[in-house]
Amino acid sequence: MGSPQPPPLAHVFRGTFVHSSRSEPMEILHEHLLGVDDSGTIVFLEQSDQQEQLAKKWGFRTSDIRELSNYEFFMPGMVDTHIHAPQYSFTGTRVDLPLLQWLTTYTFPTEAKYKDSDFAEEVYTRVVRRTLKNGTTTACYFATIYTDTSLLLAEILDKFGQRAFVGKVCMDVNDSVPQYKEITADSVRETERFVKELLEKKYPRVQPIITPRFGPSCTEDLLHALGNLAQAHDLHVQSHISENEEEIKVVEKMFPAYQNYTELYDKNKLLTSKTVMAHACHLSEEELKLFSLRGAAISHCPSSNFSLCSGILNVQMVLKHDVKLGLGTALGLDDVIGNFEVGKEFDALLINTKASDSPFDLFSADNFEDTVQKFLYLGDDRNISEVYVAGKQVVPFSSSV
Amino acid sequence: MGSPQPPPLAHVFRGTFVHSSRSEPMEILHEHLLGVDDSGTIVFLEQSDQQEQLAKKWGFRTSDIRELSNYEFFMPGMVDTHIHAPQYSFTGTRVDLPLLQWLTTYTFPTEAKYKDSDFAEEVYTRVVRRTLKNGTTTACYFATIYTDTSLLLAEILDKFGQRAFVGKVCMDVNDSVPQYKEITADSVRETERFVKELLEKKYPRVQPIITPRFGPSCTEDLLHALGNLAQAHDLHVQSHISENEEEIKVVEKMFPAYQNYTELYDKNKLLTSKTVMAHACHLSEEELKLFSLRGAAISHCPSSNFSLCSGILNVQMVLKHDVKLGLGTALGLDDVIGNFEVGKEFDALLINTKASDSPFDLFSADNFEDTVQKFLYLGDDRNISEVYVAGKQVVPFSSSV
Repeated sequence: MGSPQPPPLAHVFRGTFVHSSRSEPMEILHEHLLGVDDSGTIVFLEQSDQQEQLAKKWGFRTSDIRELSNYEFFMPGMVDTHIHAPQYSFTGTRVDLPLLQWLTTYTFPTEAKYKDSDFAEEVYTRVVRRTLKNGTTTACYFATIYTDTSLLLAEILDKFGQRAFVGKVCMDVNDSVPQYKEITADSVRETERFVKELLEKKYPRVQPIITPRFGPSCTEDLLHALGNLAQAHDLHVQSHISENEEEIKVVEKMFPAYQNYTELYDKNKLLTSKTVMAHACHLSEEELKLFSLRGAAISHCPSSNFSLCSGILNVQMVLKHDVKLGLGTALGLDDVIGNFEVGKEFDALLINTKASDSPFDLFSADNFEDTVQKFLYLGDDRNISEVYVAGKQVVPFSSSV
Repeated sequence: MGSPQPPPLAHVFRGTFVHSSRSEPMEILHEHLLGVDDSGTIVFLEQSDQQEQLAKKWGFRTSDIRELSNYEFFMPGMVDTHIHAPQYSFTGTRVDLPLLQWLTTYTFPTEAKYKDSDFAEEVYTRVVRRTLKNGTTTACYFATIYTDTSLLLAEILDKFGQRAFVGKVCMDVNDSVPQYKEITADSVRETERFVKELLEKKYPRVQPIITPRFGPSCTEDLLHALGNLAQAHDLHVQSHISENEEEIKVVEKMFPAYQNYTELYDKNKLLTSKTVMAHACHLSEEELKLFSLRGAAISHCPSSNFSLCSGILNVQMVLKHDVKLGLGTALGLDDVIGNFEVGKEFDALLINTKASDSPFDLFSADNFEDTVQKFLYLGDDRNISEVYVAGKQVVPFSSSV
């Protein structure tokens, strides 16, 4: 008789949880219990003195509880709102040219190699492993113009269990490296195929995203068709905008009928509440207002902007205009991930601040908040002992991947 | 009979050496032999085909040669021109206040704890180990106002084998944290004692440096006495200058007789060719000219400047005025260390680009220069398998320290 037992939980953790909530930018919850159900959803986060009631309600035993040590805590997984998977092969090198010359000299010739599925498989596997190991549970990827290896990236993401958006890059203008561009009609048709085939795979956490490369690489016809496609399937959109001044001049020259770069995307239905635009260093206040009005987001990439001398994003100005910036909410996933509220999926990092070979030292005067800050400013993957996406442990890597 | 044999060499390495020379910012020497004598000096660096002649001249056998693998190379040790040893206890935390409030709230109360030699020993040991492990073979340290624990830092440095300057900090003004300051006469007398006792230790690679904290912490009498002391013993000098705007206003108010901050140091004999001043974000062109005239150097700390919102150093402007900036030459050690020229001391890092758990991936398309860049931009202490100072291997740590 009585009420039916809920299905067994996937995890019950007891220890310290650190996250951001609406009221506090950093909330440290000591001596808490967190439960995750079989679908990866957080079903409770309560003080440990509630253990008896929780155990009765959710049907777990003391031996089911995973106890964290005093040097461990869980924090939400990290979100990368802008990453070019094919460029991972040369990460950390070739930062000696400004944007347009950098694209022509290094990037386009490298991306052209991803027609080859063996090469693509090697690099894409490594970038997914590396970012997961570094704590990135969600990432928004640019692939290349090649549909098949872009689908391969999605397959690898699903296999390793990273939550992701994947974009087949669209570009039908490229005078400098003409072997790396598409015919307009092909670009549209291949994007349709990419979206269709990726959706048919029914990967639970890997979704397609419409990806015009940026203004200088696209005709108006292509932008127009991609905007329609995004609208028809209610898809996310990603691109770049106003990264450096030379780029903006090119856009002004190519598209004289548009008042500014933002309008180019907006009038082609590519500036929506599901859009994330990278860089945006040089947007005018008028353009920021349009971002705010549409609910479009900016992905801020300061390291890249410094490396390529592109410019500096005035973050205060962006926030003044109430434009979405940066992390989890940029991607419109804030009802699914981002913290440990009940009902969200458990995307989390188990941090060990005393990991063997940890890159920072702790002293007796350090309080717990200091310890968290030391991890955030000085820590690295050596301190990330486990990574979870939707309740599934994805690091250490399973032997099956 | 014949000529007498030279003393046996301490090391002969064969493999790849990467360094900067006068003619090339990055020179990669494959298939080279480098010899280090018993005093730690590089005695040859030549192509491997010279092995037979070198072996005859220097009296080594093939079995004496340490062969590097294809994934290893030697690069010069790194030089930190400005580091506060006592602040290591809270590195990575407490970056939420601008400079003067940060000093008052966090730094001065922490530094006051270094009167206690147990606490000092723990933190100083850790900072020396950590920086050595990260490849810093030379460092220019600020200690605290306490002479005995500043001497303890020097002792620890000698024990671990790091090349260093150590400054007992001088400050006789501190209204906000009055327990952390000195009487003027005591500050001068204790600095004299610090210099005398440290020189008497005859540590081969640890030297004293005159260290007024910065303008707002010093009376004119103190600066005057320290300048005389530096001149009398021909000592190096370090301090801070023009880090943030509030600080500059305080200096203007305290020292109205001086035209600017640089003149305050200069007229008190503290701006010499052996001086290294940290930050300097807001120096005027007139002040930069005076730096150039005196041959004084600037230690540029961009991370700190961003963290504390102090300002941005215009590096182009500094270089235009031909002011020494940044690394090895700042410290006036460029005839002793900095690259692998014959006659210099062997301060070097053995880099393994395929170390177990290396933080970056290599691909078949990477050439050697890419590999070096990946280490420089993405690598960490996991790739630094050995560290040498003056020919002595200091990492991995010897069991005696």
